[in-house]
Amino acid sequence: MDRRSFLRTSALGGTAAAASTLAAPAYAQGNRTLTMVTSVPEGFAIFDDAAQLAADYITAMTDGQITIDKRPAGSLVGAFEVFDAVSAGQADVYHSADYYFLNQHPGFAFFTSVPFGMTGQELSNWYYHRGGSELHDELAGLFNLKSFLCGNTAMQPGGWFNKEINSADDLQGLRFRMPGLGGQVLGRLGASVQNIPGGEIYQALASGAIEGAEWIGPFADERMGFQEITSTYYAAGFHEPGSALTLSMNLDIWNEMTPAQQAIVEGATRAVYADNLAMSLAENGAALARLQAQGVQVLQFPDDVWDAFGSAAEEVNAENMGDPLYAKIADSYFASMAESAGWFSQADGLYMEQRNRVRGV
Amino acid sequence: MDRRSFLRTSALGGTAAAASTLAAPAYAQGNRTLTMVTSVPEGFAIFDDAAQLAADYITAMTDGQITIDKRPAGSLVGAFEVFDAVSAGQADVYHSADYYFLNQHPGFAFFTSVPFGMTGQELSNWYYHRGGSELHDELAGLFNLKSFLCGNTAMQPGGWFNKEINSADDLQGLRFRMPGLGGQVLGRLGASVQNIPGGEIYQALASGAIEGAEWIGPFADERMGFQEITSTYYAAGFHEPGSALTLSMNLDIWNEMTPAQQAIVEGATRAVYADNLAMSLAENGAALARLQAQGVQVLQFPDDVWDAFGSAAEEVNAENMGDPLYAKIADSYFASMAESAGWFSQADGLYMEQRNRVRGV
Repeated sequence: MDRRSFLRTSALGGTAAAASTLAAPAYAQGNRTLTMVTSVPEGFAIFDDAAQLAADYITAMTDGQITIDKRPAGSLVGAFEVFDAVSAGQADVYHSADYYFLNQHPGFAFFTSVPFGMTGQELSNWYYHRGGSELHDELAGLFNLKSFLCGNTAMQPGGWFNKEINSADDLQGLRFRMPGLGGQVLGRLGASVQNIPGGEIYQALASGAIEGAEWIGPFADERMGFQEITSTYYAAGFHEPGSALTLSMNLDIWNEMTPAQQAIVEGATRAVYADNLAMSLAENGAALARLQAQGVQVLQFPDDVWDAFGSAAEEVNAENMGDPLYAKIADSYFASMAESAGWFSQADGLYMEQRNRVRGV
Repeated sequence: MDRRSFLRTSALGGTAAAASTLAAPAYAQGNRTLTMVTSVPEGFAIFDDAAQLAADYITAMTDGQITIDKRPAGSLVGAFEVFDAVSAGQADVYHSADYYFLNQHPGFAFFTSVPFGMTGQELSNWYYHRGGSELHDELAGLFNLKSFLCGNTAMQPGGWFNKEINSADDLQGLRFRMPGLGGQVLGRLGASVQNIPGGEIYQALASGAIEGAEWIGPFADERMGFQEITSTYYAAGFHEPGSALTLSMNLDIWNEMTPAQQAIVEGATRAVYADNLAMSLAENGAALARLQAQGVQVLQFPDDVWDAFGSAAEEVNAENMGDPLYAKIADSYFASMAESAGWFSQADGLYMEQRNRVRGV
């Protein structure tokens, strides 16, 4: 489909009113529907909540000038085809996780989450106040896209295992589901890493085809039912310490918007970031209590396993540093992380530890 | 001034265009300027950044239908008079910290920060997903206000001291600046608590009139110049673990807005919450490094001092629990805190500890 003709035919109503208004940019003179393609099914926990809230905000704030026609994975294009579809103008907007598009450019990893990287809160420090947003513009612009962080699943747990992990040796040969750079790290430590789509993990785990899996967090994991198969849950994980979601618009469409519409899209994505990260953390806390009531044991990896994860993560990161734009983003990202991590651990970190101890939280 | 006549005379321009549009709510037919009164001077770090960003978003997103005329403390009304002014309709909007209004109702404390309460991230979990926003509506509605969280200064440090605090006995008789419920807690431990406005703290500390003070965080404290007087800085504090800011609108004005304008105001405040908390954390990290380079020693209170803070904080909280609405808000607030704190410490907390250890952050 030719995008321009799609734009013309998708303009709906409002022409009588538009004809009587003062001169305004062409784009503003009629109501418009933008097609948003996503990488998940309708109603998918946390992920689709963010996409839907963004769509609702944009429609409400523009008073219906812009309506979002949200299309779940597989409806218009496949889950991982959304990037190319919007880049090429076959769809107008995607809502997804940018690390699905490492084949387009490895630098997209930083706009979701990277091993030993930033939490959801830290990521927003960088994105909004230390140049992250501008780097996202630079990278996405290469693909004719205008991108915004728009949601965050919060820290993803170490995952579900069929045994305890007492040393890095226990990872040898382990058939484990983990996608992305985290999976590459596990692979370096000898695990047999599988990248299985969400809808197939439960069955693979139940049949023994895999021996463990990470997914998203207690709230989403509980819905998957992993607690019915195994009760060993590692809490803190190294691989996705705060996975952001992205709303990305075809750059031509972005440029046709009025400044007010652009401000609304930007503001809506920031509102969704705050809302979605808060949702993830609120729901994960509640879900954890339910899982523990069902007998799930929450464990932590020992220090030497963390050390092994760390060494392998540095190797995986180093492999990409030859790409100048990847290196530019990585340097900015890790500098911001180092800058904000020190104060956070001494202030919020120490505070929460003392508060939880004193109040018995 | 009568608010209704103010509204009529402040409607600016746009009448020709308005006359030609289809029927629309009266409020939408002309551009409007809303007067926003704040509790700080123009350009005041973090605090005024949030107010200005909210004003900018609302103006940009409404395409100038609504312009915010921001008036710093003392310009139209005094810093702490903004609540009554907006409640009574003498001004349209305030941007402030709701714990300045404990005399109007003690429950407002929870919409800024309370001793041993939630961090900025945790507060948003409650506010957006565990009923906090609805309770804010209920409380503010008693005063003819519609309120939204709109910014967060992040955790406020223990503060600047002229000596080390090695036990709770060291607080006896200490002349220390700390406002609000935190100050009441310190007072119970024998400190001589002073509530000194921001602009006078430096001089009071320099002259010895007070022996210590807490302010906002490394970024704002550095601008105050406290490091020129004392170099003993306690990092984690118990008193304001994540101080939110509030944008509050006269309820009649809110009700006159179109649904699109209401969505914009709500969305803008959430965007500002995300932006401002990120700014606070990013800038605090950078400022801490500069302060340490100037010889500031960063210390932590020992466990038994935290225990003393905790006991006194429970007493102060219990004093207000006789008020049914305070108790309702407190129960909701602390239940949400308990729910999300457990997972956060096992996930994000443990992760950051291991990451900082492994990477040497």
